Amino acid sequence: MLNYIEPIAKLINQFARLPGVGQKTAQRYALRVVDMSEEEVRAFANALVEAKTKVKVCSVCGNLTDTDPCKICQTRDHSVICVVQEAKDVMAIERLGEYKGVYHVLGGVLNPLQGVNRDDLRFAELFQRLTGDVAEIIVATDTSAEGEATATYIARMVKNYGIKVTRLAQGISIGSELQYADEITLSRAFTNRREM
Amino acid sequence: MLNYIEPIAKLINQFARLPGVGQKTAQRYALRVVDMSEEEVRAFANALVEAKTKVKVCSVCGNLTDTDPCKICQTRDHSVICVVQEAKDVMAIERLGEYKGVYHVLGGVLNPLQGVNRDDLRFAELFQRLTGDVAEIIVATDTSAEGEATATYIARMVKNYGIKVTRLAQGISIGSELQYADEITLSRAFTNRREM
Repeated sequence: MLNYIEPIAKLINQFARLPGVGQKTAQRYALRVVDMSEEEVRAFANALVEAKTKVKVCSVCGNLTDTDPCKICQTRDHSVICVVQEAKDVMAIERLGEYKGVYHVLGGVLNPLQGVNRDDLRFAELFQRLTGDVAEIIVATDTSAEGEATATYIARMVKNYGIKVTRLAQGISIGSELQYADEITLSRAFTNRREM
Repeated sequence: MLNYIEPIAKLINQFARLPGVGQKTAQRYALRVVDMSEEEVRAFANALVEAKTKVKVCSVCGNLTDTDPCKICQTRDHSVICVVQEAKDVMAIERLGEYKGVYHVLGGVLNPLQGVNRDDLRFAELFQRLTGDVAEIIVATDTSAEGEATATYIARMVKNYGIKVTRLAQGISIGSELQYADEITLSRAFTNRREM
């Protein structure tokens, strides 16, 4: 059996490093690349290198940026800080286009079993930002056990500064049927029910 | 709303050109790239460019290759030629590791509605290869209507040279349940039934 020729094998291995990409998908991507023009492939390669070399972490909020501080930190309302786990959470909230405040990217959540402790996350940088100008901290970590534990820790610490802390609402997803909600979600939806 | 920063937006657009990749998947890939080391990203970029610049089409069989003729044409039995639509079909058959003959890659199938006619495929190159040394042509085009029509055309032409033409067996997939076979497959399975 003759396997892939070397240049294609190498490219398949590179694509297979992307999240959720197996051998078959990587092969499909690699063959698509071979079908592109050389100019297109060079543009792709440049985009890869530039995404790595030009993208930095904002020294204020920890978000991905090509300026420092990032454009969000430069232009938005610093009285509200939304705390998220990862840069992709910032992207999700920015897609809404509704939030006018700034962010703080933790870089993960507390997870002692996997060796992620307080010093591994950007907590110190968050607490440094809690000056008199900050009116509210919105905690938008995931609703996983670790996300909840991290939110609780942040809430306790931030309250020491006399600043309001809020958490994104949890409940049944809009448009979904009640019967398909999992038990914990349904239970929280009852606890957090509001008057109509 | 602030959208993606430019270097990330550019990379997302590049990933979104790959088959089956939407915005969300492209974003996940782009963020994975940002997390790689610069060395890793440069290796990825080089693999892209090399897959394009080093990979050529074999002048004999039309398969992708980094030598000419390709390693399969150089080392294997030329008395049997397996005719396939695309290079990816060669890869699928090579994964089996059972076939010892050579290939002929057509570059597609006859599809007059989409403007693919005889002159657009590598038929002339195939017929040129039909010298006295060739004992059998195995037609392994897809079982689509176009694949069948292409197979029929090849069979008619090759028979003029007095060479045996065979087609890959069609029937119910191994391991699949009869009830889920589509009607055409089931009908062919009856027609091509064999004595036990």
